[in-house]
Amino acid sequence: MKALVLEEKGRLSLRDFPLEETVGPRDVRVAIKVVGVCGSDVHYYTHGAIGPFVVRAPMILGHEAAGVVTEVGAAVTELKVGDRVCMEPGIPDPTSRASRLGLYNLDPAVRFWATPPVHGVLRPSVVHPADWCFKLPDQVSFAAGAMVEPLAVGVHAAGKARVKPGDVAVVIGAGPIGLLTLLAARAAGCARVIVSDVDDDKLALAARLGAARTVDVRREPLAAAVAAETDGWGADVVFECSGAERAAAGVFDPLAPGGCVVFVGMPLAPVPYEVARAQVKEARVEHVFRYAHVFRRCVEMLASGAIDVAPLITRTFPFSEAVAAFDYAAAAPKGEVKIQIEMEG
Amino acid sequence: MKALVLEEKGRLSLRDFPLEETVGPRDVRVAIKVVGVCGSDVHYYTHGAIGPFVVRAPMILGHEAAGVVTEVGAAVTELKVGDRVCMEPGIPDPTSRASRLGLYNLDPAVRFWATPPVHGVLRPSVVHPADWCFKLPDQVSFAAGAMVEPLAVGVHAAGKARVKPGDVAVVIGAGPIGLLTLLAARAAGCARVIVSDVDDDKLALAARLGAARTVDVRREPLAAAVAAETDGWGADVVFECSGAERAAAGVFDPLAPGGCVVFVGMPLAPVPYEVARAQVKEARVEHVFRYAHVFRRCVEMLASGAIDVAPLITRTFPFSEAVAAFDYAAAAPKGEVKIQIEMEG
Amino acid sequence: MKALVLEEKGRLSLRDFPLEETVGPRDVRVAIKVVGVCGSDVHYYTHGAIGPFVVRAPMILGHEAAGVVTEVGAAVTELKVGDRVCMEPGIPDPTSRASRLGLYNLDPAVRFWATPPVHGVLRPSVVHPADWCFKLPDQVSFAAGAMVEPLAVGVHAAGKARVKPGDVAVVIGAGPIGLLTLLAARAAGCARVIVSDVDDDKLALAARLGAARTVDVRREPLAAAVAAETDGWGADVVFECSGAERAAAGVFDPLAPGGCVVFVGMPLAPVPYEVARAQVKEARVEHVFRYAHVFRRCVEMLASGAIDVAPLITRTFPFSEAVAAFDYAAAAPKGEVKIQIEMEG
Amino acid sequence: MKALVLEEKGRLSLRDFPLEETVGPRDVRVAIKVVGVCGSDVHYYTHGAIGPFVVRAPMILGHEAAGVVTEVGAAVTELKVGDRVCMEPGIPDPTSRASRLGLYNLDPAVRFWATPPVHGVLRPSVVHPADWCFKLPDQVSFAAGAMVEPLAVGVHAAGKARVKPGDVAVVIGAGPIGLLTLLAARAAGCARVIVSDVDDDKLALAARLGAARTVDVRREPLAAAVAAETDGWGADVVFECSGAERAAAGVFDPLAPGGCVVFVGMPLAPVPYEVARAQVKEARVEHVFRYAHVFRRCVEMLASGAIDVAPLITRTFPFSEAVAAFDYAAAAPKGEVKIQIEMEG
Repeated sequence: MKALVLEEKGRLSLRDFPLEETVGPRDVRVAIKVVGVCGSDVHYYTHGAIGPFVVRAPMILGHEAAGVVTEVGAAVTELKVGDRVCMEPGIPDPTSRASRLGLYNLDPAVRFWATPPVHGVLRPSVVHPADWCFKLPDQVSFAAGAMVEPLAVGVHAAGKARVKPGDVAVVIGAGPIGLLTLLAARAAGCARVIVSDVDDDKLALAARLGAARTVDVRREPLAAAVAAETDGWGADVVFECSGAERAAAGVFDPLAPGGCVVFVGMPLAPVPYEVARAQVKEARVEHVFRYAHVFRRCVEMLASGAIDVAPLITRTFPFSEAVAAFDYAAAAPKGEVKIQIEMEG
Repeated sequence: MKALVLEEKGRLSLRDFPLEETVGPRDVRVAIKVVGVCGSDVHYYTHGAIGPFVVRAPMILGHEAAGVVTEVGAAVTELKVGDRVCMEPGIPDPTSRASRLGLYNLDPAVRFWATPPVHGVLRPSVVHPADWCFKLPDQVSFAAGAMVEPLAVGVHAAGKARVKPGDVAVVIGAGPIGLLTLLAARAAGCARVIVSDVDDDKLALAARLGAARTVDVRREPLAAAVAAETDGWGADVVFECSGAERAAAGVFDPLAPGGCVVFVGMPLAPVPYEVARAQVKEARVEHVFRYAHVFRRCVEMLASGAIDVAPLITRTFPFSEAVAAFDYAAAAPKGEVKIQIEMEG
Repeated sequence: MKALVLEEKGRLSLRDFPLEETVGPRDVRVAIKVVGVCGSDVHYYTHGAIGPFVVRAPMILGHEAAGVVTEVGAAVTELKVGDRVCMEPGIPDPTSRASRLGLYNLDPAVRFWATPPVHGVLRPSVVHPADWCFKLPDQVSFAAGAMVEPLAVGVHAAGKARVKPGDVAVVIGAGPIGLLTLLAARAAGCARVIVSDVDDDKLALAARLGAARTVDVRREPLAAAVAAETDGWGADVVFECSGAERAAAGVFDPLAPGGCVVFVGMPLAPVPYEVARAQVKEARVEHVFRYAHVFRRCVEMLASGAIDVAPLITRTFPFSEAVAAFDYAAAAPKGEVKIQIEMEG
Repeated sequence: MKALVLEEKGRLSLRDFPLEETVGPRDVRVAIKVVGVCGSDVHYYTHGAIGPFVVRAPMILGHEAAGVVTEVGAAVTELKVGDRVCMEPGIPDPTSRASRLGLYNLDPAVRFWATPPVHGVLRPSVVHPADWCFKLPDQVSFAAGAMVEPLAVGVHAAGKARVKPGDVAVVIGAGPIGLLTLLAARAAGCARVIVSDVDDDKLALAARLGAARTVDVRREPLAAAVAAETDGWGADVVFECSGAERAAAGVFDPLAPGGCVVFVGMPLAPVPYEVARAQVKEARVEHVFRYAHVFRRCVEMLASGAIDVAPLITRTFPFSEAVAAFDYAAAAPKGEVKIQIEMEG
């Protein structure tokens, strides 16, 4: 089949790739319709590795995907040919200790699309366990379905925060994950979400997406802005989505007593953590690793209109221009949020 | 001052009522602007008592109120003259064991407006602790502010349920509390809310307010409808708001494994409770008594637009017609949800 | 192999039973050493059925078991021949929706020993998935290991209650499950456990096992006794372990504001449930169905000495007298708590 | 009255101190019997300040106390003259926003004994609100009662961790708070507690107090020891009680997936915090500030025998030698854990 192959660091090709996949009893085959380009895909392209995960052999990219079921395994009852679906890209060992506890995302044996050596889905079709495919109702487009994967991160973060209706939240960082966390926080019951960044364009988009207040931290300290918004009490939840060490070091400043911090972004270096500042507020700090148990929830919220991801899909390339799409994405063009690739046929 | 006085069971008068209230250091005086008519007010009028609470002396009615601060106590810093506010009508003993635990609504010493022998607020002004007054931003009208009290019941119920984003919920009973619980459940993150009742008009209103599906249980069993909506899995949360014994007896039927039932309505007789049905799903059952810690949250959600109570305010009377308003409400007119009384001057 | 077979209602035989089991890659074979006699085993013997589960063909009884590993599958790394283990008797489908959520005990597809048509383990050996076998350290005897299964019910109940250190708890019903819940509640942090029953011998045993106070409800109302013990505040947790409708109807009376009720026993008829009584305390009610994720925890607590089940094992029969053991148990002899059967060889 | 007065940094005197206290309606007067010497008392003595709290005028020391009620206010019903009590040393404003939420320990207005400018209780008597006095049953000595204050820190930490029965925990740091956290963790349901330190004597005491395993981190990495104890899975809870930056930086290494870290110790400098290490385990991190709602629980557990603090009280001085007691404590004598002062008369 024709696939977008990362041959090695810095070299992509759209070419025939031999891949035989058979449909097991609980599997389905899905014709891919739309695939989003994720920062991690681009990073593998430009750097050839992410931490311990090194591209050592040609690997197909892409893990944010939606498509149509074309074949179902003998034991599959919940899906049928023609169903429109999005797919959770990590397949855990269901019998591992973590999986049995319901923590399948923490299973070290998980096989995750486009994480070496596992192939991604920038290709015409994939075989996947039916358990990790989620039906899209008619009102959810393939493009929106392909947004479920990054949205899941935000929804998982909001779930970890245990948002209560009427909470005031802060989202630090208005990149794609920050913006999706903003949408998730609002859908989860936050009445006001304050978004901070150092980029005016991103903050403007955050405002259009429903941020009650945006803070350019080059001009105004975040804690002061939050204090002004909350009579000095602080925010119930702080989502750290920037991954910037300096921002991460300040998470307790805008927090309310008894509040919750969720580390969504992944700083590359250790963060200077002031334990005493967290203690005087008895902060609860949660950490998220990808997501678990939220794809179905994301689809529900897209279907109900509680979340609208369309404004975040800023550009779409046809599959035939997939290499160009990656080159475009690698240039980090200002104003783009999510770039997607539409499969043909 | 002129007040709406329940002289005794069945006899209301709008008359001068001697009531001297002084503003203590942490109190404010509030000029009342709008008061909602609650079922309990009407019940005191028509029956003279609710359970152990018996009207033994003339009592002013009304406990759903919003107004304007006209005087502030010496130690009050968070409010000033001219602030628009809504008020939490129960004043607990802040040093009771329940209050110290944060469970102030369970404090038996709570003094609650229009619960004998405590006077309500269908009168020009009231003195109230500043701690239990909540500032209304400009975009929240007095009418909406007077809806915070009944809305608080729904928001408290949604909080007890610990709604997770994307949940599917059922609301049993589409009376005022059921409808407000529907709004609260959606604002709290439920993607789909299924509402059941035996009254087509109420179900039609529920649909207009965002119910994903309505079920007339005279024609269709609730559990079957929910199963059809959820691939047989069931609802994550069931809010019992009807107070009807028969409906309350069936709460576990539409519930998903690991789901939560919240008893909001208060059935008058014991409900036949099938423990084994709750056990096979390991249901969690929560019970709410009024509300706690949610007025500020309700105001936040009215201000952000997450909740719009305007469609529920179906009729408004001037204070001079307050007796007529109660007679109208006591007739339980079809199609009315919330009747309010607007104060003059 | 020789097994204790329930041929049909009322007829047991100890006889050769053809059963070929092969060890799959993730399985182990366990030589059975001790099996406890459970009320459900006896009920199948005397009644031929429990609810929808009807004995339609000869079935081997027994599901509380400990033994020694004699063979391990090719993919098993965590166990080796000679390891002493106890076994969780229900095998769920690890890929079911409930299992993926961590709620494997609610999976309707679970296959549970000695629940028709699945055979139990009153036989020399069994093949079982390694994931559901738990290593016993040297200081935990086979007899104690065979107590893990019923103990797991109590520990699961204590976990559901989310016991906080220093809680006061009530256990209603001093049968085997009530007594094991008493031990679990104490080990989980309850400082005082008050046990009620209508049988003096059982209450005396409860006192020996650490109940701070016992209440014979024929002589003294439970709520009054609990009020006297707690300055009128009530108990933080009430474990209903009697399965008696009348006792179950009164669970909210001894409960503290904000407290938790756990329904462990399974009343056969609906319980008259007073919603308003639960509401004024905002009770949380939890329901348990068997257990999940606690076998390892039980072994830990037996090993550490936090829980000692030895006093509950009141009689042991050799396997050759297994039929006599069941006839003895079926007579419900006063003073016996747990009867066990020791395998030979 | 005669009191132990910190005149200024480095200068203590046992002298008459004029202090008139009247008993308000909800207060009691308590004759002090035993006062423990806390590290913070010693620090005020040797340094004259702790962070922003500076001793600017003579201040009486001591905040870990038990005594006997000698006078009760007019509105006090729950205590009477002669009752033996221990006292919670912080008095919050019950109407503050934090207090109303049940987070009274986070109220910035709290007045805490022996924190400038509030006097402590190394003096014959004190007037205190009855709400913050907790009755000691006969089997709890005054010495044990005076241990409730530091024990409360450990119990609060165990509560924040939401220990589940059978958990495996790590306590980092075997000083007084670490040892009390060990006792609290075991009483809260931990089956095994592994304690680490760099001092053999302290580790030996931890072993005597029930640590399942002690780790001298100068000789052996903590994570390796915990992995060996848990088949590589890690500990369910890690209590950081050392306050040492280096130890605090390593809290995620011994943690299990889905586990909880509680920061009890207060490192003076920022800790290098590796967010990604916490993320791959989705660690929950809790922070404690003193304690809330646990004094009653501590007394319950001392009374039931679940916790025995006697082995930690290593030396007692008479009040007449209080200055000597502080000089002795200031020398940090090896082998001492808790030094107490017994009041006379």
